[in-house]
Amino acid sequence: MVPVVSIIGTSGSGKTTLLEQVIARLKRRGWRVAILKHDAHGFEIDREGKDSWRHKKAGAKTVALSSPDKFAVIRDTAVEWPPERIIASYLTDADIVITEGFKKGPFPKIEVVRAAHSKKPVCGKDPLLLAYVTDVALKGGVPVFGLDDYNGVTRFIEKEVLRKAKPSTVSLIVDGEHVPLKPFIEVLLREAVIGMTRSLKGCEKARDVEIKVRRSAPRKRK
Amino acid sequence: MVPVVSIIGTSGSGKTTLLEQVIARLKRRGWRVAILKHDAHGFEIDREGKDSWRHKKAGAKTVALSSPDKFAVIRDTAVEWPPERIIASYLTDADIVITEGFKKGPFPKIEVVRAAHSKKPVCGKDPLLLAYVTDVALKGGVPVFGLDDYNGVTRFIEKEVLRKAKPSTVSLIVDGEHVPLKPFIEVLLREAVIGMTRSLKGCEKARDVEIKVRRSAPRKRK
Repeated sequence: MVPVVSIIGTSGSGKTTLLEQVIARLKRRGWRVAILKHDAHGFEIDREGKDSWRHKKAGAKTVALSSPDKFAVIRDTAVEWPPERIIASYLTDADIVITEGFKKGPFPKIEVVRAAHSKKPVCGKDPLLLAYVTDVALKGGVPVFGLDDYNGVTRFIEKEVLRKAKPSTVSLIVDGEHVPLKPFIEVLLREAVIGMTRSLKGCEKARDVEIKVRRSAPRKRK
Repeated sequence: MVPVVSIIGTSGSGKTTLLEQVIARLKRRGWRVAILKHDAHGFEIDREGKDSWRHKKAGAKTVALSSPDKFAVIRDTAVEWPPERIIASYLTDADIVITEGFKKGPFPKIEVVRAAHSKKPVCGKDPLLLAYVTDVALKGGVPVFGLDDYNGVTRFIEKEVLRKAKPSTVSLIVDGEHVPLKPFIEVLLREAVIGMTRSLKGCEKARDVEIKVRRSAPRKRK
């Protein structure tokens, strides 16, 4: 999987501003950044009355919009997808995924603690905690950065997350669950898929391959 | 690939309203509908000042939002993705994809012609034209429906698009291009992928499998 780091902290602690500053710096350094934001209360990305809103309202499960320089997909889900699944399915084409939120997620975390909002970290003794960004005197055996030390945090993410990541070359999702792979299996699977694909006419030079296979019984209409 | 039909017509002809009515009827009949809308002039799905807008503005290539009952992904692209690629990558989990626009796309088409806007079809002699929805006396050797004959159009789509589609079980994208497969190859590929996956620990009952493999050289930073 793409390397992931989560920026966590209470509401109002300044996560979005920190992210904004870190994204800009990582981008300047040549990294491709994807963001995954958690919103427990739902989001209103679409506007009432817009076509996409009308289609969704009429009952479309998924609405996608395509334009010359970007596209968007909005999809209803019966249950909340775990962040690993969204990342493995939709955010593989980046050097790093930074999440805002997911404090209980399985990712390394950087917590923002702003005295004006709360002096108590939410991350407690989470072994995945990498650092604090704070104006509070916190101890926890992890590096501490000032609230506006954007350069420091960026370099830290580069060193601890980006440079330590093993380049991942396979992402596997089985029946909706992301499956972590041992290195040996990853190589096997990758070479088998590439080999099969290259045997197809016109695909002799295949490098990046995406296969979706469905073997579940065809859905019956109600 | 999932069966696709395009609703086309000049701006103001009533494509969105027709779609809205057809979506609702297909949904009532038990079909899962995905919509892909083409917007040549770009879209503003995100709102200025919102977090996701700020992250995008700061330089994130992709921004995703997750909530308990839906998620959204907004992604920048260097060039416009062909609709087949968006469908094969992002809209496989539906019984039908209906596009609004893509009049030059490789999909069967239904054209809306509203006298008050234009009496001339844009689809001309496109062999993929399936029907007109119009208040103009048009001839073209295809069925003609009235502008508000939503039931008629819905039944037509069901009969001509949904019921005629062969159930597709494999979608393959190689180096960003959707690759159509012959039935024999489709079965081979499907069974090979399922077989490999089921040999992995914990995946013995795999039915729906998604594999992304990258063998392109690791990207160098600028």
